Amino acid sequence: MPVGNTPLPTLHPVPGIRLGTTAAGIKTPNHQDLVVMELNEGARVAGVYTRNAFCAAPVQIAKSHQATAASRYLLVNTGNANAGTGQPGLEAALQCCTALAELTDVETQQVLPFSTGVIGEPLPTDRICQALPAALDNLDEHGWEDAANGILTTDTRPKGASVKLDLGGREVTITGISKGAGMIKPNMATMLAFVATDAAIPQQLLQSLLDEAKENSFNRITVDGDTSTNDACMLAATGASGVLLTDGTSEHLSHFREALNELMMTLAQAIIRDGEGATKFVTVHIQEAASEAEALQVAYIIAESPLVKTALFASDPNWGRILAAVGRAGLDDLDINNINIWLGDVCIVRDGGLAPEYTEAAGAAIMAQEEIEIRVSLSRGNESVKVWTTDLSYDYVKINAEYRT
Amino acid sequence: MPVGNTPLPTLHPVPGIRLGTTAAGIKTPNHQDLVVMELNEGARVAGVYTRNAFCAAPVQIAKSHQATAASRYLLVNTGNANAGTGQPGLEAALQCCTALAELTDVETQQVLPFSTGVIGEPLPTDRICQALPAALDNLDEHGWEDAANGILTTDTRPKGASVKLDLGGREVTITGISKGAGMIKPNMATMLAFVATDAAIPQQLLQSLLDEAKENSFNRITVDGDTSTNDACMLAATGASGVLLTDGTSEHLSHFREALNELMMTLAQAIIRDGEGATKFVTVHIQEAASEAEALQVAYIIAESPLVKTALFASDPNWGRILAAVGRAGLDDLDINNINIWLGDVCIVRDGGLAPEYTEAAGAAIMAQEEIEIRVSLSRGNESVKVWTTDLSYDYVKINAEYRT
Repeated sequence: MPVGNTPLPTLHPVPGIRLGTTAAGIKTPNHQDLVVMELNEGARVAGVYTRNAFCAAPVQIAKSHQATAASRYLLVNTGNANAGTGQPGLEAALQCCTALAELTDVETQQVLPFSTGVIGEPLPTDRICQALPAALDNLDEHGWEDAANGILTTDTRPKGASVKLDLGGREVTITGISKGAGMIKPNMATMLAFVATDAAIPQQLLQSLLDEAKENSFNRITVDGDTSTNDACMLAATGASGVLLTDGTSEHLSHFREALNELMMTLAQAIIRDGEGATKFVTVHIQEAASEAEALQVAYIIAESPLVKTALFASDPNWGRILAAVGRAGLDDLDINNINIWLGDVCIVRDGGLAPEYTEAAGAAIMAQEEIEIRVSLSRGNESVKVWTTDLSYDYVKINAEYRT
Repeated sequence: MPVGNTPLPTLHPVPGIRLGTTAAGIKTPNHQDLVVMELNEGARVAGVYTRNAFCAAPVQIAKSHQATAASRYLLVNTGNANAGTGQPGLEAALQCCTALAELTDVETQQVLPFSTGVIGEPLPTDRICQALPAALDNLDEHGWEDAANGILTTDTRPKGASVKLDLGGREVTITGISKGAGMIKPNMATMLAFVATDAAIPQQLLQSLLDEAKENSFNRITVDGDTSTNDACMLAATGASGVLLTDGTSEHLSHFREALNELMMTLAQAIIRDGEGATKFVTVHIQEAASEAEALQVAYIIAESPLVKTALFASDPNWGRILAAVGRAGLDDLDINNINIWLGDVCIVRDGGLAPEYTEAAGAAIMAQEEIEIRVSLSRGNESVKVWTTDLSYDYVKINAEYRT
């Protein structure tokens, strides 16, 4: 039950990157569940990972490998998160890395593993290792679409974005894919996203570009407030375009940064549009906050309130629930009499009470839409933030009550 | 769909207290929706109120009246929360107080108003004022059961508790009623609870007894994490038994305190057993925490996780979701390898991974029960807390999606 009907756009190849997808039968037979992403020699990779203290085995291995060697392969499986699996889980992740390294003649540390799926079950390493040759046979610059499908779990559709930039007459491509529908409240990272460009970008700059872009995209979405154990977002720069971006090339860099931020936001919003059981795509926009921190606090209290979310599902302009959520956000000295709330362009609360010109018909018309903006002005300062979320529907309960059965 | 089949116990009269209930037709015709509680002259009242910054008109009036005069009447209506109603809402609440004061020959400030129901609609003061004489005609020492029914909204059954104490050969009674099923995460108060005793208790002691009792009862429950705008919990001491409790009468006082704490916990747990859409009564018990604050942080993260709650609804021993919730609770230096989790008496996670002796059959047997304890040991200290919550079912979504229609 995703929101809207967003087809996967054309995903332009990124010179230097090849992807291969195959069916390893990890959870379901004949299901595309294993992706290998190959990076050319000299490519640089930046990553951000979950901050959940309960951090899955592959995340621990990927972090350590990324820090110690030049990454050449990303290995992604679905159907099993390899989380909560203790020492055997770490060994299983390493075993898969070693198998891929031996087949491709690189070091084990040059392989980064990623897993998503059920928590707490042993990773079927045999099936993964047996499927690796088929994935390698499929390696192709045009493999992005298959890979976008191969990393899905409870998602109902693949998520991708792609853009070509003209930087002073030379072409640079950025392409990315993401997955995720539930257990979505990324904390400094996201479920799984893989973005690549053929620009050449020094390691430190690459990481700072990723940090900035994820902050206003993946770190601004929530489906259920539950932070995954396996979140990871990777940005690779192959350099194959010959276009070097450094702090010195400021005009090209700002063009690239802008394009990257937009692409990451598209990927993050695609996760919300496909959120578990989602019937609405909701933007929570907080304005005139005293600080970004308090704006985020209010935004997430609204975005994660079960009462607000069920009202959204019902297309019910129940502004009292929004105002009650603002009231319990824990802001010091909040004066509820200064609060204004809009649904889309319709002012529903003015000065903490029902706006005199408001009509239920006007509110209901906004709420009937598939894409809704809730805008709250706190009248305390100049900071504003946006976060994106879903409603809470019967299907969210159904999907998560039946997930393991 | 409440948990279990708890009939309302016998509610003993409290000498000095009379209650009258009637139908004012506030939201639904011929529905018992208005309660007057009369306190004898000389009675003392302690109260705790919502800490939601968006605080309903009656709460503001009740606080101010309680501080300025000796309370003689509590006036409770359902069907309309008189919240988000601005200055007209304050005037409406006052108007009802004045009408009751004139009929009973007391001052307006001696009446405390309480409202619960839909947020943001004008209070129908005419209907309330017209119904007051009928409520007064019904005033009766045995009116507790009618009042327990008269304060309900989305509740499916009345909630009450009553106890008689023998304090050195003299009898003291404590009786209380409560309501609430959704928008339940009281913050220093609760939806609505009214408790009375015929002991004589000085004002300051009465308030401290209430503060202590609510902390481990109403402040330890959550249905959906949404704090109401109208929470209030009142404790009245009529003194009619002639038993005076002061700091000096320590043995009797500790007996009374214990009984009050237990009675308040019963009332609070009754709200959870009748939580919106609840099919499970869940105790989240955190042990070996470094502080009470961090224990509560972990307890509420688990109790409010949509993924944990849908797994509870499905009777699915999905321990990975519990562990993932612990991991995102934001505890400094949390080592997930020291975490143990039990479902009832079954150890499911040991040292951060699946317990070797655990079987799905053992976990499923616990989860199939209507009352479930999730116990988490953090291995960081000696503090422990319990909070109580519900599962997240289709019916929770249904009730809250259809509430205003």
